[in-house]
Amino acid sequence: MGDREGPRPGGRSARVQASVHGAARALLARMDRAQVTIPLIAAEAGVTPSTIYRRWGELHELLADVAVERLRPDMAPADTGSGRGDLLAWAEQYAEEMSSDLGRRMIRDVLAAEGGAGPRRCCGYVAEQIGVIARRALARGEAFPETDAVLDRVVAPIVYRILFDEALGPDRVGDLVATAMAEARRR
Amino acid sequence: MGDREGPRPGGRSARVQASVHGAARALLARMDRAQVTIPLIAAEAGVTPSTIYRRWGELHELLADVAVERLRPDMAPADTGSGRGDLLAWAEQYAEEMSSDLGRRMIRDVLAAEGGAGPRRCCGYVAEQIGVIARRALARGEAFPETDAVLDRVVAPIVYRILFDEALGPDRVGDLVATAMAEARRR
Repeated sequence: MGDREGPRPGGRSARVQASVHGAARALLARMDRAQVTIPLIAAEAGVTPSTIYRRWGELHELLADVAVERLRPDMAPADTGSGRGDLLAWAEQYAEEMSSDLGRRMIRDVLAAEGGAGPRRCCGYVAEQIGVIARRALARGEAFPETDAVLDRVVAPIVYRILFDEALGPDRVGDLVATAMAEARRR
Repeated sequence: MGDREGPRPGGRSARVQASVHGAARALLARMDRAQVTIPLIAAEAGVTPSTIYRRWGELHELLADVAVERLRPDMAPADTGSGRGDLLAWAEQYAEEMSSDLGRRMIRDVLAAEGGAGPRRCCGYVAEQIGVIARRALARGEAFPETDAVLDRVVAPIVYRILFDEALGPDRVGDLVATAMAEARRR
């Protein structure tokens, strides 16, 4: 998680990043992915192309960075009153978002960059959300699986099926959550 | 699984494919991935570039095709005398191969192409291998999990961790296999 957590908020570097990310998102929304280039993004962002090359190196590194930022959760998981309910609601929404066209493109962009920093940040965001649900559940006195167990039993099958097979529907996601919760109760 | 299973063996089209795949593998082995181009592959294979463009369209489609072929298993899973042993041996080898530099590049190449045909073929190869192990286990009268359960409980975490986190070591892979087998016995 430590790598490239982003520049100090409000500084010049942060303003450049926000502007370049915004420009990339705007272009991706209105033209085909294959037509997006660093000079176009620079023009849209009002910076020189060399600013982008210096900071991100290559287009796919910038697009990976944009995708990771988009995958950063902007709110805590819904509190439904139980750990099982919270995990189910979170997992259903995660599966739906990741299997959308936009979600699939984000995953591809994150995986296309060199090195594992971007993917690890995504996995870290997911682990944080699960941690929030787990702490609430434990505070209520409920049994709840370890975060690693939720990653293996719930998140991994959702992502694997999106990438290599057919996306799982809500029923199958519900089964994964039920299995993980049953295992936690058996411990 | 049906898409692009490959041309009739021995025909002209099959010879072109074998020659182009071989050329791509040879170039990937001796130069940096970013330097490999369709004209270079064509020269190495002794075909015209237009033959490659006509058949594969773009470089990353060809490299995805080469990667899928490399991920096709060339032998049945080892028979260790029990379903549990067979699955453990297969999963350990799969985790090791996929987390190697070559394995990671194959996964990335497969995922980089448009459409889901390549990834689905890879998932199909894995399901076939698990099916062989399952049929042997059932013939011995052993309990064995459904193929889908093995994909969710064993294969998905192995692949997810390679892509988004740290590759799982043999101990963690052993735990995944043990959990899947315990679940099959409880059914």
